[in-house]
Order: sequence, then structure tokens, then C-alpha cells
Amino acid sequence: MKSNLSYLKKLELFKELDDYKDDQFFAVADQRVKNHLPQWISFSPNIFWLKQPEEEKNLEVFGNAVEFFLKQGICRSSTIYAIGGGATTDLAGFVAATIQRGVPWVAIPTTLLAMIDGSIGGKVAVNMPQGKNLVGAFHLPERVLICGDFLSTLSEKEWMSGKGEVLKYGFLSREVHDLILSKAPIEEIALACAKHKSQVVERDFKETGERINLNLGHTLGHAFESTLKIPHGHAVAMGLRYLFKVTGNDEALAEWEQLAKALTLPVEKLELGAFFHFDLKSFLDYLDHDKKKSGTTLRLVIVKGIGNCYTEEVVLKDFKAKICAHADFKSS
Amino acid sequence: MKSNLSYLKKLELFKELDDYKDDQFFAVADQRVKNHLPQWISFSPNIFWLKQPEEEKNLEVFGNAVEFFLKQGICRSSTIYAIGGGATTDLAGFVAATIQRGVPWVAIPTTLLAMIDGSIGGKVAVNMPQGKNLVGAFHLPERVLICGDFLSTLSEKEWMSGKGEVLKYGFLSREVHDLILSKAPIEEIALACAKHKSQVVERDFKETGERINLNLGHTLGHAFESTLKIPHGHAVAMGLRYLFKVTGNDEALAEWEQLAKALTLPVEKLELGAFFHFDLKSFLDYLDHDKKKSGTTLRLVIVKGIGNCYTEEVVLKDFKAKICAHADFKSS
Repeated sequence: MKSNLSYLKKLELFKELDDYKDDQFFAVADQRVKNHLPQWISFSPNIFWLKQPEEEKNLEVFGNAVEFFLKQGICRSSTIYAIGGGATTDLAGFVAATIQRGVPWVAIPTTLLAMIDGSIGGKVAVNMPQGKNLVGAFHLPERVLICGDFLSTLSEKEWMSGKGEVLKYGFLSREVHDLILSKAPIEEIALACAKHKSQVVERDFKETGERINLNLGHTLGHAFESTLKIPHGHAVAMGLRYLFKVTGNDEALAEWEQLAKALTLPVEKLELGAFFHFDLKSFLDYLDHDKKKSGTTLRLVIVKGIGNCYTEEVVLKDFKAKICAHADFKSS
Repeated sequence: MKSNLSYLKKLELFKELDDYKDDQFFAVADQRVKNHLPQWISFSPNIFWLKQPEEEKNLEVFGNAVEFFLKQGICRSSTIYAIGGGATTDLAGFVAATIQRGVPWVAIPTTLLAMIDGSIGGKVAVNMPQGKNLVGAFHLPERVLICGDFLSTLSEKEWMSGKGEVLKYGFLSREVHDLILSKAPIEEIALACAKHKSQVVERDFKETGERINLNLGHTLGHAFESTLKIPHGHAVAMGLRYLFKVTGNDEALAEWEQLAKALTLPVEKLELGAFFHFDLKSFLDYLDHDKKKSGTTLRLVIVKGIGNCYTEEVVLKDFKAKICAHADFKSS
């Protein structure tokens, strides 16, 4: 299987896009990057612009987008481009997965987080009132065009969120680990993360084995994201840290600190003490939702060494007891 | 690949379903067959009942169904049952394809048309204002449980629609052809049709080759369905007849008459003269929509002999001219 990842400079990307200038170019795009795209795109009639992708990643906007493209004459051989962060690529990918029972799509991620995670791997979805990503599909993009120049558009918050997820790859891949510690350019690190995920997904598309490891740090991460209302990657960085703290994995914790510093992540913001209010009960309740169907266990990804992770079923009750017994949670 | 088709008597079906009596049984079901199902299903809290499936096969009801099942605690290992005609199985299958990015589903078709067509092959979808089946997926049911006893619930219209589609299989499969002419029980014919489709789909899931033949009679059929507002199978029977008439395939036309009579189809209702009003312009416009992307040709399935069909690209303009020149269309 040929990799569908390409790394492009802005001029190269523009040149690629310009090929579609006179053709029908269908896209879902984040309005916030409009000024960073070729000018003709602003005037194209076939762009479904998103104003607040995170809020618009729902079934209603999905329906509007499908209707929009049908009205604009999309057909089975059309391609949908997704230009934006993870919420944009998730929504656009789900539209592409279902319109006319599936048309090809191309992801152009514009945030660090989307470049290394959301746009890779074909998990597409929208949120429901009952939770995130509850309606969706597996639909691999034909291509993922990564252009580091978009990184200049990121806010401090988006940088932090992206780097939090990069931190995760530092444990999954020796290559990423070494690039981080050698302070390689972030574009280079991002590409290595994207390649790592892409390769894992190629081997285990439907997440029945190895792909599960990509959830490292996400069990506690999602619980932090939900209870502290912080960006995904920020929460993942905390999820990793507290996974190591709670399970007493001191070696991994020391690695975490090294990697976080090398990534210039504000370590002091990645601990519970940084938050004025933390609702331990909601946090534990969230873990209950995450439990396996059996109802008593939780699937955790455990770090044995760099590039050496495995999944383990842990008894939910015991894991919750460990959390409650930990000093940071006690004092929260 | 093991066939996912089972033919069951009502008592056998009930026995199978009863296994789920105390378990979580999630289903989308047509209210009109409620009285023909095990009584406990009427009281089950996890059934999403449809009143008018044809009208409810849209994105709004899709969203309601997804929300309903999420509220009822559906999870990735749950199965969704679809009990009803083609509109019900299409909607339920699309819910199953997308909820939690896909859960298994089981089809229990209750109309002849759904038994031999809609429930087989994993094409699931809902309608959009712009046309039928414009949002959907390919999601094969784990099983299709065909119970001939439901056929007693069918209206005259539903019988005719189902038989119209059976007629099509008479040209695609020698086995079905001979069963029809030997006046075998309709349950037996239906099962042979279902098996034929199931085997074709197994060999060509994404409709890039052989599966296209299943569209025999559908080009004109869809145009009749849309302009005359008649049921799908009724339109397909007419689509077949006029395909043979317009292309001068007299041998196939003679077969058509034999098969239609053996199926006790009301032949006199399957011709243009039976309709008070026929809008030729809308009919021809509809064919324009159906054209290939190139814009000038149409893909037709041609009958060379029983069980011997192939596809041909015909020039749309020439085909339309042939239609206009035919006596039946001229006098309409």
C-alpha cells in the first residue's frame, strides 16, 4: 500500500490546488484559514465554510453540508477536500464517507493536532448530544497533504494541544522520541508522528490490535478533557502524566518530563494543581462510561519502554482506588 | 464467505428472536408488522418504530434513530435488527453503518421486494430532497432472515412491486427463470432471487463489475417510478418491457410476457396506455440525470439470453430518439 502522506511547502500545495482552479473543487474548509489559501478558493462556489468547526461538528451541519454539495452537483467521481483542524477533517470525511455512499476525499490539516492525528487513519465522525464521535465511519482519505506553513496560524492553545499529542508519539516511536530530544524542527517531528500513525493504521485499520496503542494516555486524557474542558492534546499530555503517576511507572514519568521540556510544553499547566476546580466525582464517572462491555474492566495502554507498549485489562474498581489514593487527586 | 441468508418459518424466526427476549434487543421496525411479531417486542423499550417508512427514510429520522439508540445505551458490540420493507432496512442499515462508526445489523425483510432486493447486498441509505439514496454506505448485514410468512401481510400493490423485481431475476438467473415458469411457490422463487443477488454481491461488493447487471431494467424503471409515481418493482417491470420494446429485443420481450403471466402480473397495467397522464418531457429529463459523468452516454444492461446479460454504453441522444420514435411513447 502506497503511503497517502505528502509533505509540501505552501507554494507546492498552492500549485497542486491550482490544478483544480477551473474544475469543480468541492471542499469543507475552516474560514479561519481562508486568508492562507489561494485566492481563487475564496471565490469558489463549491466551498462549505465552517465558522466554528468544533461547534459545527454535528449531525445538523453534516446534513447542511450534504445538501450543499448535492445542490452544487457533486457526483460519485468528485473528490471532497477538507481544509482545517481535526473537527473540519472529521466532518468533511464523514460527508465524503456517506454522500452518494462514499466519494474520495483529501485532507489538508492546518493544525499540528490534525496533522499528526485527526486527519490520519480514516476515522471520521460527528458529535452527538450523548458524546463525541458517536456517528461516523472508517473512510481513509486518498491523500493527506501536510503543509508545515499552516503552523504559523496556530494560537498558543492549539500549539499546546498539538504538542501534547506529539508527546504521546514520543513513547510509541523511537524515531519520534529521538527527534523530540534532539530538538528537531516541529515540522519534521510532525511528519514522523503522521508516518507512525499512518503505518499502524495500514496494519490495523479497524482497531482490533496494534491501533489500540494509539490510545495511549487517552483513558485519563478523555476524562480530563471532559471534566476540565481543556483541548484534546493538552488533556492527553495530562492523561499520560497521570497514567504514569497512578501506575507508579517512574521511568516513563521521567521520560515524560524530558520530552515535555524538549517540546517546550508548560509543564506547570499539565498538573492538577494548576486548576482551580477539579471535580473528582465527574472524573471517576467518566471512567465508568469508558469501561468495557463486561462492565468491570478498563483497557489501558501500558508503556514498557520507548516504542514498546501493550494493552492491559485492568479492574476498574482497583484503578479508581489507585487514582483516589494518589496525592494529587486527594488534594484536588 | 458463508452465505448470510437463512430461510425460516415464522415459528423458527420467533424462536430465534426469543433468545434476545431478556437481552438488549435494538431494532428499527415497521409498525405495520407489529402484530406479526412476538408479543414481547411490542413492549421492548429499544425498538425505534416507523409509521410510514417510505416518508421517514430521511436524515431527520436517521438522526432521531441514532439519538434514540444512544440514549437506550447501544454500544459497539450491540446488533441492530431491521424489521420491515426496503425503506426500513435501508434506514436501519445506515444507522448501523454509522452509529459508533458501525455496529452489526440483521435484516428481517417483511415484503417480497425487500426479501429479494433491498435487504440483500449492504447498500444502505436515506433519501435527500435532491433524490433517493443520496446519503448512505455499504454495510452488509450479518444475516438476512427471510420468513415467507410475512408475505401474507402484503397489499396488492406490494405484491405487484415485489413480483416486478422477481421478473428481472428471471432474465439474470436460469434457476429463477425456470422456477417462475414452473409456477413454483413464491417463497421458493424469492429465496432463489435472494441467493442470486447475494452471490453476485459477494463477487462484486462495490458494484464495479457484475453487480451492475442487477440494474437490468432500472434505467427506464427509475424514470417510470419518478414520472408515474408508481412502486419500484412495478416500475422495474415496465422498465424491462420498454427496454426490450425500444431496443427491438423481441425475443426478450416474448420471455417477458411469459414470465409476467406466470407470475400473474397484471400485464395490462404494465404499459403506458394504462396511465391517464404520462409526461414524456419529465421522463426524458430524468434519463439526463442518469447519464454518465462524460455527459453523453448511458449505461444499459442488455439481455442476450436468460442468465446472459452484459452492460453497454449507449449514446444518450440516440437512445432518447429511439424512445420518442416508439409508438407507445408517441401516443402517450
